Amino acid sequence: MKNKAITSRNEDFAQWYTDVVKAAKLAEYSNTKGCMVLEPNGYAIWEKIQSVLDKMFKQTGHQNVYMPLLIPENLLKKEGELIEGFAPECAWVTIGGSGHLEEKMAVRPTSETLFSDYYALKVKSYRDLPKLYNQWCNVMRWEKETRPFLRTREFLWQEGHTVHETQKEAEEETLQMLKVYEKFFKEYLAIPAITGKKTEKEKFAGAEYTYTVESLMYNGVALQSGTSHYFGQKFSKAYDIKFLNRNNEWEYAYQTSWGVTTRMIGALIMVHSDENGLVLPPKIAPRQVAIVPIGTDEQVINLCKDYSKKLNENDITAFVDLSEKSPGFKFAEHEVNGIPVRIEIGKRDLDNGQITIARRDTREKINLSKDCDIVENVRKLMIDIQDNLYNNALKRREELTYKTDDLEEVKQIMNTKPGFIHAHWCGDEECELKMKEIRGTKSRCILEEELKETDKCVVCGRKAKHMVVWGIQY
Amino acid sequence: MKNKAITSRNEDFAQWYTDVVKAAKLAEYSNTKGCMVLEPNGYAIWEKIQSVLDKMFKQTGHQNVYMPLLIPENLLKKEGELIEGFAPECAWVTIGGSGHLEEKMAVRPTSETLFSDYYALKVKSYRDLPKLYNQWCNVMRWEKETRPFLRTREFLWQEGHTVHETQKEAEEETLQMLKVYEKFFKEYLAIPAITGKKTEKEKFAGAEYTYTVESLMYNGVALQSGTSHYFGQKFSKAYDIKFLNRNNEWEYAYQTSWGVTTRMIGALIMVHSDENGLVLPPKIAPRQVAIVPIGTDEQVINLCKDYSKKLNENDITAFVDLSEKSPGFKFAEHEVNGIPVRIEIGKRDLDNGQITIARRDTREKINLSKDCDIVENVRKLMIDIQDNLYNNALKRREELTYKTDDLEEVKQIMNTKPGFIHAHWCGDEECELKMKEIRGTKSRCILEEELKETDKCVVCGRKAKHMVVWGIQY
Repeated sequence: MKNKAITSRNEDFAQWYTDVVKAAKLAEYSNTKGCMVLEPNGYAIWEKIQSVLDKMFKQTGHQNVYMPLLIPENLLKKEGELIEGFAPECAWVTIGGSGHLEEKMAVRPTSETLFSDYYALKVKSYRDLPKLYNQWCNVMRWEKETRPFLRTREFLWQEGHTVHETQKEAEEETLQMLKVYEKFFKEYLAIPAITGKKTEKEKFAGAEYTYTVESLMYNGVALQSGTSHYFGQKFSKAYDIKFLNRNNEWEYAYQTSWGVTTRMIGALIMVHSDENGLVLPPKIAPRQVAIVPIGTDEQVINLCKDYSKKLNENDITAFVDLSEKSPGFKFAEHEVNGIPVRIEIGKRDLDNGQITIARRDTREKINLSKDCDIVENVRKLMIDIQDNLYNNALKRREELTYKTDDLEEVKQIMNTKPGFIHAHWCGDEECELKMKEIRGTKSRCILEEELKETDKCVVCGRKAKHMVVWGIQY
Repeated sequence: MKNKAITSRNEDFAQWYTDVVKAAKLAEYSNTKGCMVLEPNGYAIWEKIQSVLDKMFKQTGHQNVYMPLLIPENLLKKEGELIEGFAPECAWVTIGGSGHLEEKMAVRPTSETLFSDYYALKVKSYRDLPKLYNQWCNVMRWEKETRPFLRTREFLWQEGHTVHETQKEAEEETLQMLKVYEKFFKEYLAIPAITGKKTEKEKFAGAEYTYTVESLMYNGVALQSGTSHYFGQKFSKAYDIKFLNRNNEWEYAYQTSWGVTTRMIGALIMVHSDENGLVLPPKIAPRQVAIVPIGTDEQVINLCKDYSKKLNENDITAFVDLSEKSPGFKFAEHEVNGIPVRIEIGKRDLDNGQITIARRDTREKINLSKDCDIVENVRKLMIDIQDNLYNNALKRREELTYKTDDLEEVKQIMNTKPGFIHAHWCGDEECELKMKEIRGTKSRCILEEELKETDKCVVCGRKAKHMVVWGIQY
């Protein structure tokens, strides 16, 4: 039995994605073009993501702050590469109250400029360092083509911005935050992301270098899912962040930034979901267990409530669905919403001492004794679901990962069953541009791999400089 | 001993306020005119406020969502009174990417329009009702004069927007959320707010009526600190939110909205703080206990850590200050930052079996045995501090609350020792405008009080219609 509101994933992946977003009530288009409404089911996933990541940030010594939404044009222009990268996609405020502004202001596309401006004011001595700040906020980039979660003119994110005394400390921070993201993807989102440095062409405007977290969607398309940048002294020189170092000399500070966005919800959908709607890893599901009474028998209802109480007392988010819908309707609804575990309790089963547990990932049903330790059983099942989703995603990624230095083979793969291609590269941007002609294939990241003398660039055949992972970009 | 960086509260209240904000590192001016940077100490208070209120909202059945930042002009214009109220203070985006927009868009000053537009799409039957949504976000109003927390062009807030089947249910919601705010002010912020309806002149643009939460600052000035609006069918008619009711007839839905902002942090400062900096009620303080070792003795440090561990395990947020500063410097720093409880441990005291606890509110020091139940002692002390702050604020409010129907007396009070004045009013806007001539005195709210036949309007002397609380407005 398949959910009729949802297009088959294999027939039309793009439509399937849109159908899942709609059927699971995650987001809705709005009359503000290119922007979406995050509905309760979608926003609750973001809240869960926030609560987990925020704890990880605080455990690594970071503090939250809030910077202004608007950036005066002059301030944005100070770092040349940044404005070059972002100017074409800024939204500009030109009228404030009843008058035209003397200087237009950008709605922040990112906040390096405001953090740097603030740090210039506050950092005077090595004793003021490091500053390890993060903010959760909305940003805006004037995209032409938009899709819910994946690319919208406004999106929600966190942006960490840190400033350090030494290059070493800043580089360690950049790498540390990459590892935090990687861990979060693996342990919470159940996504086996790959990580590495971006090429010069693909790095962030204004960074010395950029680390990226790349995930592979079910259809073999790659999604840039998080980044961590090392800025060196680029911004500190542009914004004059100078401090007296331990030798009592003035020195420009060293900076980093790192961020992830609501796009991760898009990744969650495209990695785990199926023809019946959303599938969520239990550790990121806002509601983990739906308990559905079949019929209105008092004993049944009481057992439902009893289970719910026990589960919630043990930090498992459960609820009893007492709405006036048929059990079948409820089953379908909780399924399309991606609730990892469903408990069904009916009078007849109960008389036989039984209850039924359905898991969302495999859709299997298991019978258990009504007197079982419900907390332990659900806990174990959730661990199993979490592992199973990760393993399936890993298997899929491995299935769609290819190693070749033959350009014809690259074309054939990308045109039939795309995925991550590991292929050598000479380091020349020309060759990256030639790869792009193949269905927009781009370098995703550079792998830290030792090369052999004989390794050749997949495009030009010259001596290879790097092993690169390539993919079709969302 | 007084903190020298802070102006005396009685000498120059405005400067004292600015000094406290700066000395406690709550917020900093930014190069985006009229907007502030919320620094870690300030933002942490907002996070605490959010976590408490969000739980209260969820317990009363509300769900969080997120609506777009920008509102197309046409959409904003649909409800006439709203646009009239907000148009003069909107910031407008007119350029997106490389082109001028066909229709300019407002940075949201509030989101009635977007919620209503969304509800029009989603609400078709009484079965779709109620929808009880809230969002935490930034909003923008192009103010001319700004002050940190009290009035800034951008601020953070929550805005609840609900839609109901009946007038009764919507009115109950409006009142319920007023009570939630009142409880939050009393139990967490330790502020004895007064509540009631706004007059027609002072109500929210587009509302049928507005309830308000009004607090009195230490200097006798009133601060509107939260509002809860009943919209009736005004927005549902403008935005076409129609549903099939239980009689199978089309009916316009009934709406509410309610919000509080970062301005509450301004209220916290102006109600509780003193000449030594910030004073925070323990229940809203991000860090509740600072433990300061005097000297570097290992036994001392170990006891500090042991206390910290025990307190944190019992949900009291404590930290040991091991920074390389003198104890005196640390004491002053934790004091100016408003940390409610400080524990001081020195070698000599310890040899005598003693430790010292200092409370921020009264600055008293208490000696305790080193073997005391530290958790119980701190817990009791925090309850005592919380109560004491509330009682002091209540006492101050009562001291500055006057009852008179003599206009000359009103003038005299407002020009010497202002506060809340309870005075009768005929209901005529003319009389409100005359009151405003007295140092900007405005009606704060209408009290639900039975009137006598002989009660007369404080301004015109005609028959009174309401008992009103008046105050000078921030």
